[in-house]
Amino acid sequence: MATEVNPGIFLRPLGMEPPPERELLCIFGTGDLGRSLGQRLLQTGYRVVYGSRRPQSCGPLPPGAQVLSHTEAAQLASLIFICVHREHYDFLETLAPQLKGKVFVDLSNNQKKDMYPDTNAEYLQRLVPGALVVKGLNTLSAWVLLNGPLAGKQVFLCGDSAEAKQAVRELATRLGLSVLDRGSLSAAREVEDFPLQLFPEWRLPLCIATGLTAFFFFYLLIRDIIYAYVEQDKDISFRIMVSLANKVFPIVSLIMLSLCYLPGVMAAILQLYRGTKYSRFPDWLDRWMLCRKQLGLLALALAFLHVLYTFIIPIRYAVRHKLISTVMKDNKSTPFYFDNTEAWATDSFFVLGIMGFFLYFLLGLTSLPSVGGSLSWREFTFVQSKLGHLTLIVCTAHGYIYGWNKFLKPSTYKWWTPPGYMLCLVVPSVVLVLKLLMVLHYIFFCICTRQTDALHHVDKSIKMRKINGTKKSRDI
Amino acid sequence: MATEVNPGIFLRPLGMEPPPERELLCIFGTGDLGRSLGQRLLQTGYRVVYGSRRPQSCGPLPPGAQVLSHTEAAQLASLIFICVHREHYDFLETLAPQLKGKVFVDLSNNQKKDMYPDTNAEYLQRLVPGALVVKGLNTLSAWVLLNGPLAGKQVFLCGDSAEAKQAVRELATRLGLSVLDRGSLSAAREVEDFPLQLFPEWRLPLCIATGLTAFFFFYLLIRDIIYAYVEQDKDISFRIMVSLANKVFPIVSLIMLSLCYLPGVMAAILQLYRGTKYSRFPDWLDRWMLCRKQLGLLALALAFLHVLYTFIIPIRYAVRHKLISTVMKDNKSTPFYFDNTEAWATDSFFVLGIMGFFLYFLLGLTSLPSVGGSLSWREFTFVQSKLGHLTLIVCTAHGYIYGWNKFLKPSTYKWWTPPGYMLCLVVPSVVLVLKLLMVLHYIFFCICTRQTDALHHVDKSIKMRKINGTKKSRDI
Amino acid sequence: MATEVNPGIFLRPLGMEPPPERELLCIFGTGDLGRSLGQRLLQTGYRVVYGSRRPQSCGPLPPGAQVLSHTEAAQLASLIFICVHREHYDFLETLAPQLKGKVFVDLSNNQKKDMYPDTNAEYLQRLVPGALVVKGLNTLSAWVLLNGPLAGKQVFLCGDSAEAKQAVRELATRLGLSVLDRGSLSAAREVEDFPLQLFPEWRLPLCIATGLTAFFFFYLLIRDIIYAYVEQDKDISFRIMVSLANKVFPIVSLIMLSLCYLPGVMAAILQLYRGTKYSRFPDWLDRWMLCRKQLGLLALALAFLHVLYTFIIPIRYAVRHKLISTVMKDNKSTPFYFDNTEAWATDSFFVLGIMGFFLYFLLGLTSLPSVGGSLSWREFTFVQSKLGHLTLIVCTAHGYIYGWNKFLKPSTYKWWTPPGYMLCLVVPSVVLVLKLLMVLHYIFFCICTRQTDALHHVDKSIKMRKINGTKKSRDI
Repeated sequence: MATEVNPGIFLRPLGMEPPPERELLCIFGTGDLGRSLGQRLLQTGYRVVYGSRRPQSCGPLPPGAQVLSHTEAAQLASLIFICVHREHYDFLETLAPQLKGKVFVDLSNNQKKDMYPDTNAEYLQRLVPGALVVKGLNTLSAWVLLNGPLAGKQVFLCGDSAEAKQAVRELATRLGLSVLDRGSLSAAREVEDFPLQLFPEWRLPLCIATGLTAFFFFYLLIRDIIYAYVEQDKDISFRIMVSLANKVFPIVSLIMLSLCYLPGVMAAILQLYRGTKYSRFPDWLDRWMLCRKQLGLLALALAFLHVLYTFIIPIRYAVRHKLISTVMKDNKSTPFYFDNTEAWATDSFFVLGIMGFFLYFLLGLTSLPSVGGSLSWREFTFVQSKLGHLTLIVCTAHGYIYGWNKFLKPSTYKWWTPPGYMLCLVVPSVVLVLKLLMVLHYIFFCICTRQTDALHHVDKSIKMRKINGTKKSRDI
Repeated sequence: MATEVNPGIFLRPLGMEPPPERELLCIFGTGDLGRSLGQRLLQTGYRVVYGSRRPQSCGPLPPGAQVLSHTEAAQLASLIFICVHREHYDFLETLAPQLKGKVFVDLSNNQKKDMYPDTNAEYLQRLVPGALVVKGLNTLSAWVLLNGPLAGKQVFLCGDSAEAKQAVRELATRLGLSVLDRGSLSAAREVEDFPLQLFPEWRLPLCIATGLTAFFFFYLLIRDIIYAYVEQDKDISFRIMVSLANKVFPIVSLIMLSLCYLPGVMAAILQLYRGTKYSRFPDWLDRWMLCRKQLGLLALALAFLHVLYTFIIPIRYAVRHKLISTVMKDNKSTPFYFDNTEAWATDSFFVLGIMGFFLYFLLGLTSLPSVGGSLSWREFTFVQSKLGHLTLIVCTAHGYIYGWNKFLKPSTYKWWTPPGYMLCLVVPSVVLVLKLLMVLHYIFFCICTRQTDALHHVDKSIKMRKINGTKKSRDI
Repeated sequence: MATEVNPGIFLRPLGMEPPPERELLCIFGTGDLGRSLGQRLLQTGYRVVYGSRRPQSCGPLPPGAQVLSHTEAAQLASLIFICVHREHYDFLETLAPQLKGKVFVDLSNNQKKDMYPDTNAEYLQRLVPGALVVKGLNTLSAWVLLNGPLAGKQVFLCGDSAEAKQAVRELATRLGLSVLDRGSLSAAREVEDFPLQLFPEWRLPLCIATGLTAFFFFYLLIRDIIYAYVEQDKDISFRIMVSLANKVFPIVSLIMLSLCYLPGVMAAILQLYRGTKYSRFPDWLDRWMLCRKQLGLLALALAFLHVLYTFIIPIRYAVRHKLISTVMKDNKSTPFYFDNTEAWATDSFFVLGIMGFFLYFLLGLTSLPSVGGSLSWREFTFVQSKLGHLTLIVCTAHGYIYGWNKFLKPSTYKWWTPPGYMLCLVVPSVVLVLKLLMVLHYIFFCICTRQTDALHHVDKSIKMRKINGTKKSRDI
């Protein structure tokens, strides 16, 4: 690229060859997508000709574009955008002889996955065997082409002809797009499925969150509402709306947060046990590790709801009623003598909750693509690992303090079941104990081998490899 | 581009031609911008020479750069950056003969729009007719050039010479910038106006928000504060600060949220009525649809304020005073008997509010450029349409529950006016009813034509076209 | 680039030269990084051959890649990625004759800064003098190469051979990366240090925040808790957790917010005093101005904590206890008579706090790279300057109202020390007064010179230069 930028280029008399900006491109199809694409191409300095069945009556087109019949339009340009639904590709078959050697950019998308046995691009190639079909740019909608900034937007390309792909790549680069080549036309399935996917990586975490929420909701419904109704004949069903939900959300949130850190610990143990870093993890562990970000974000969403529910507590009718009736009953003994320990415990409980939510929030911020992308690798690791474990510790402590004086009271265990907050402390406690054991093991190892300075200088993965004597330690 | 990366390139003896990195560029002007630009160019591997009136006394320049007189500097380089205010372009006229064939990159900006009848770039071209003027890069400030990462930043270019633009484009790409070509030099007005615009797309939504806020503020001021003063002779003016504002904000927020979804429904009805998808919408509807994002974000901001105001309620002096005096008055009858329905109603009210805000917040998150940009088109549509309507339903229900037992009480209608929350429910209710009718119409259509499977597979827009028998269904 | 896209390119018979996608690249090292890089290169259409000491037993490699001995692999390709730890570079020395003229891309990173006297890249160049070493791409981790979108990610390059760098740049561009050339191989230190840095620009602001927090914590600990213990013999130590922290956080937050705007005012005064805009600022002022964003974000974090702490107040045991015991004591006189001024004052206090936090939050939003990047320069300046000063005014007023009726009470000055909120108002008040003086000075100047229209049209910096008669006013 740079080799061409030498002073000589400017001394060449102008006008000797047609300036590249005036290159003519053809668009088949005058629908929303065709029109938006044409307008954007005209803005970027290309000339555009539309191919249409009825050139006289095809509705409003961007000013500056020509409209001709398909055959005429195709002859003028070497690159043709296909902005027609797959159902109407058949007319191309009859034009096949005139389209030989042309680059076809197939931007079409289907309504749903696997509607047809083959992909649109392969079908197109079969209809016009002489064309150089490039599948791609199909993640751009008409709306984005008209309004959005395209700069840095990623688009995919695939095709069998390297030169055709190169031409499309340059055109896309000129539009400001960032192009990713996915290989030959056989990758068209993947490229066509991309705009149709609906949060695929969120499915598993959402299932886990829903399952845990449902379980704890019914568990606490039985323990709290139904127990009170059966044993004490009290109707406290109104608590379902706020009190119950405000128990379920933090419980599920804490469990899901610890599920983000459990696979890391398990993978490390597996590596220690197997004695090598280079064998593959089992599939379920791989899948789990890949959805940690989504698990964490769902946990953050539930924590956010918990915070909102907590702040709303003092305005609730039931809470105010209880406060007033406490006073009315002239039950002076309980509240009047100020219990310093109680004050310390509840305040610590709140502070740990606030700090936990604050750290949670920071973790969530670094998951924003633009924030995470601006961190160096070491910074990202620091945030996700150090800050993440700190968050887990603080939130777990928040849970422990909640029940600090209730663990040993028999009244806590209604119908012989443990309360929800006890159940939710199991997984985080296991994760933290395992993590602690691994850190202790590592420190112990360092002391034993007298490489005390290694403690500070060499990162753990290198260490592990040395422990296990793998022969791969040369390579990064 | 790629065709040049073949093994042969490396076998060519080094040093046979001057390496491209050492290309010499000229900068006229040694102000902040000129110096920052020069420093960045030097970092990227170019050589830089400054042209100055007083080469001996032009202050600190980046190390490694030369300073010469304008004429001398211009002769050495083929590309010249003009970092001089338009008011001082006149010196270029006298140099015109020496500047023939040079590429001029005009980075200048004016202090405000329409200061001069013609653009700076066109004025420059008139002064030096032989130069190849390219307007562009003017969105880069001296600060960004010195400190910021340029990677992916979008800059605009325009100019009449394709080769000159190509040279500037390559240079900008080398700096990591993403270049958008806006066409010939006649687009310079647009390019020069860009750095001067101040939230143009926020004006209309801000006007609507301000107008609605002012209207409801005075309406509620009269109904609440002045009514109490006139009829009951009570001074409750302190309520202006929190209570009144906390009524105005949610009212305006809900109306603005529904205004985001009203134009979509209106457009769909218009299409059904006209029987075609392809006629243009009236201008006001187009304008309205283009500012939906800003409307929604302002509505979110007001909802956020509403949440903060609500959480602050129980700490307020007036609220505490009322609570204490309720108890003092020994008015035991009202609060002492616990009203289960009241508890359910208020708790549901709060839960709907929290959930509505949570959904609102998710909608707002996907408006962040980096989050929205990482969604596929189908995901973005899902969030903005499905989640958006759900938010509207939840928030409207929040409003209805607020007044569930007040609709029929005469005391609600002070001075024969309806309370604010009733007024604010009108627009959202209309939007939701119209949307419901459209969904029912669509389902009914599907059942009638026995295409029950179409209900699931074919998206609505395709459907509409079939209903209306438009001849355009072939094109995307 | 664009000059190559002319229709002729497609008429050339295919297959006459090897398509560029099939270019062969060599990777030395089969560790995590080597394997991830290979997989990504294969996806992008390159052929990949690995060089390994034991080609027969080097574990799982991406499908489609070849494995050969180092010598054999090197002979096939002209570009070799070095994915080996520096400690094991020595084997390259023995291969030096075969590696002459090859482009080496050194992706290695060390465990910490300054582990070795020279950089890895320079060491490599010394070992294989005939190779064209390019240091770069070392900010990409194995994880990002496998999973992340590379589009728009910034990578650094440096090297002595322009052609070698050009080849690597094109390859990186093909991968979607955005390349920044840092010059010759002597810049390798900087490039190698980049992935090792840990929030360097956050250090100073974090130190300031920690220092201020510690100071005010101990100051208020003495004034509040210890004073009560010593003078009144009361144990109110539980207040450390919430009440004390909720005083320290807003105090430090307000001071740090004003520290964001102090250097700007100081710089302007310095310029006025020196009579020129073009002399350099002292180093400490430069450093201060560069960390304003971080100062502001830390201030926002503390304000966020203050908000959370405030909302939690009414649920606290101590607060409820106090409320109940107030009622119990039948101390009817104080709360029963409603004090309208008190209601106005506290409500205004809360409203200013909410509005201040809201503005703070908006400022923080525009610091998100993706939001800030989508603003024009004028918009960014408007937000950071106008909105920032407004935030400072509102938050300072919030502080003043807090103490509106306490300034003159002797009981406020326990042990002759001023309360914390008074101390925290000093810096913001100074900043606001200085800013006001400068604005008044500017208005006065405009009136004096009868250029009243200049008040609206000409920006301040231009004005200043005219005042000071500097000869540089021609250049931007």
